[in-house]
Amino acid sequence: MPTTHRIYNFAAGPAVLPMPVLEEIQRDLVALPRVGMSILEISHRSQTLESIMAAAEADIRALAHIPDTYRVLFLQGGASLQFSMVPMNLLDADSVADYVDAGLFADKAIEEARKVGRVHIAASTKAERYARIPDQSEMTFSPDAAYVHITSNNTIEGTQYRRLPDVGAVPLVSDTSSDMFSRPLDISRHALVYAGAQKNMGPAGVTLVIIRDDLVRSSASRKASLPTMMSYAVLAEHRSLYNTPPAFAIYVLGLVMKWLLAQGGLPAIAQVNERKAAALYAEIDRTGFYRGTAAVADRSLMNVTFRLGTEDLEKQFVADAAAAGMDGLKGHRAVGGIRASIYNAFPEEGVAALVAFMKEFERRHG
Amino acid sequence: MPTTHRIYNFAAGPAVLPMPVLEEIQRDLVALPRVGMSILEISHRSQTLESIMAAAEADIRALAHIPDTYRVLFLQGGASLQFSMVPMNLLDADSVADYVDAGLFADKAIEEARKVGRVHIAASTKAERYARIPDQSEMTFSPDAAYVHITSNNTIEGTQYRRLPDVGAVPLVSDTSSDMFSRPLDISRHALVYAGAQKNMGPAGVTLVIIRDDLVRSSASRKASLPTMMSYAVLAEHRSLYNTPPAFAIYVLGLVMKWLLAQGGLPAIAQVNERKAAALYAEIDRTGFYRGTAAVADRSLMNVTFRLGTEDLEKQFVADAAAAGMDGLKGHRAVGGIRASIYNAFPEEGVAALVAFMKEFERRHG
Repeated sequence: MPTTHRIYNFAAGPAVLPMPVLEEIQRDLVALPRVGMSILEISHRSQTLESIMAAAEADIRALAHIPDTYRVLFLQGGASLQFSMVPMNLLDADSVADYVDAGLFADKAIEEARKVGRVHIAASTKAERYARIPDQSEMTFSPDAAYVHITSNNTIEGTQYRRLPDVGAVPLVSDTSSDMFSRPLDISRHALVYAGAQKNMGPAGVTLVIIRDDLVRSSASRKASLPTMMSYAVLAEHRSLYNTPPAFAIYVLGLVMKWLLAQGGLPAIAQVNERKAAALYAEIDRTGFYRGTAAVADRSLMNVTFRLGTEDLEKQFVADAAAAGMDGLKGHRAVGGIRASIYNAFPEEGVAALVAFMKEFERRHG
Repeated sequence: MPTTHRIYNFAAGPAVLPMPVLEEIQRDLVALPRVGMSILEISHRSQTLESIMAAAEADIRALAHIPDTYRVLFLQGGASLQFSMVPMNLLDADSVADYVDAGLFADKAIEEARKVGRVHIAASTKAERYARIPDQSEMTFSPDAAYVHITSNNTIEGTQYRRLPDVGAVPLVSDTSSDMFSRPLDISRHALVYAGAQKNMGPAGVTLVIIRDDLVRSSASRKASLPTMMSYAVLAEHRSLYNTPPAFAIYVLGLVMKWLLAQGGLPAIAQVNERKAAALYAEIDRTGFYRGTAAVADRSLMNVTFRLGTEDLEKQFVADAAAAGMDGLKGHRAVGGIRASIYNAFPEEGVAALVAFMKEFERRHG
């Protein structure tokens, strides 16, 4: 197999990146043009890295119309570290935060918040194995909540919020790790959005945090007692340069943002994502041989989850697909089944290939 | 300038990487051989990444003769996050840790430890602007210290421990960020060693932690109250895969470890480093035109710091050197002056070029 041979990567993240981005990274890997050293070697106090970070931030602001009243931060530790940083910066031991519990990662976020303060579960679909997103009418909010936390897309369960819950004046915090920039983002309805980059934005190793100024200010009062590296106030004050940032991951994220803008931005990529997901769900629903696991109204456009008649058949499906050049289709180990993750950079021809494979697999085993 | 033109990079970190490593990353960037996807895209639950991480760990163990009683962890957040993780995992609010205060980064580590428990300063050279490493005879240790913390090499001030302090049975914790694997490491005298990768080991974005089993065990008792992502016990239990690790940075670190082994390992690279530093210090000491800032006995082999007669002359030196293709020679903003960082991958011909430049600069301005 030649080294440039590429397969279809349906993994839930880290996930597929746009080919033009990979080719640009490759071209400039040994020495950035007019810099004379690799992006892997440049000082974090250099003009070069400052320009790269400023361009990435500007493109993010352009893509999602982020106003000046929000800070854009490039951090480390993934969404998992944000599970702790959000309550440590925004919650007191005797105050309450509301969490919507609609997936296994929401559950993990709740666990971390409970170490810091009080947690009220605004709604939960745990008893239904998280097969759906709770409706607004089911949600009960605390009048004095420090914030409301949701997970915009549930990677494991294959569900996604189609409308944001109405939380009134309480700050809405959203873990958007698995659908960030896959569709327009109404930032004005959020106080804080965080996302690990490795699904829609870049490689693992950088976490994007978009945080409203008033939350940065309220986190400043906790600065003296928090680990410095976990203080939003410190990280915002130093513009993500309190210590050495993950320069390469930010550089790649910046290239992906440029690629996204070139695709036509968030409305355009949302159309492509709708089309890709619709093709897969249509095949799942066609005969009953495949069975979608998520409530139809809450189906994710990013992670398409389904089952076959038996676990043996599912194993066969994953193995045969891999042999046909389609990788990463095994469902999360916590739930089993099949999961096709089709993030922004996943090509439409890859979806067509999977649909064709599904038809053929059904013909052989149906 | 052709895109592959390379200059001499004297930056204090992120810093120069070996050319064969950069070329291998470039070659395989779009698709790893026999994998069909980029290292930037591979799932952290894949056999591919597991093999990459296992090989990196095995090479680290081989390089530094790390016994099985130590865990090797690949984390995020840099040394700055370790400044907090060390006390949060090892120190109680009413117990004491001893810190040797021999540089500005030691100072930052002390500040974080004070948020967690009591700190005893075993020795300090702050009043001497950290121009030297305290002698063993100056150090006073607490009989009941949870650990003793040192910074093996002071990047800003250009000093380095030539001998480890004798701390008896108390666990020795060392921030080795700026001289990790530049010389043999006697791991048996340490309980915990941590280092950001971006000086001697790889790109920014991964932190190496080598921790003895008994410290992991004692951190386990704090598991329930610590942020999960900051618990050594959790991270060790999950073999650095509790959440998505910075796969690319670990991959590059692994390639650098292979390069180091091919150079002959730590004794061989130490000889090269001694030779490079000796050439620079000889030039600094030759006439008095240049003045080294560190005590001669404690001079760092990694960061060679010196002054010229005036700040204007220093500015001229940095500017002329940059024009001659030698970048990153400006001293840290906290101390000024000149700093030539000559980590493992910095080529000997670059040192020779700087020495020649220094002679010529002195001829013109002396």
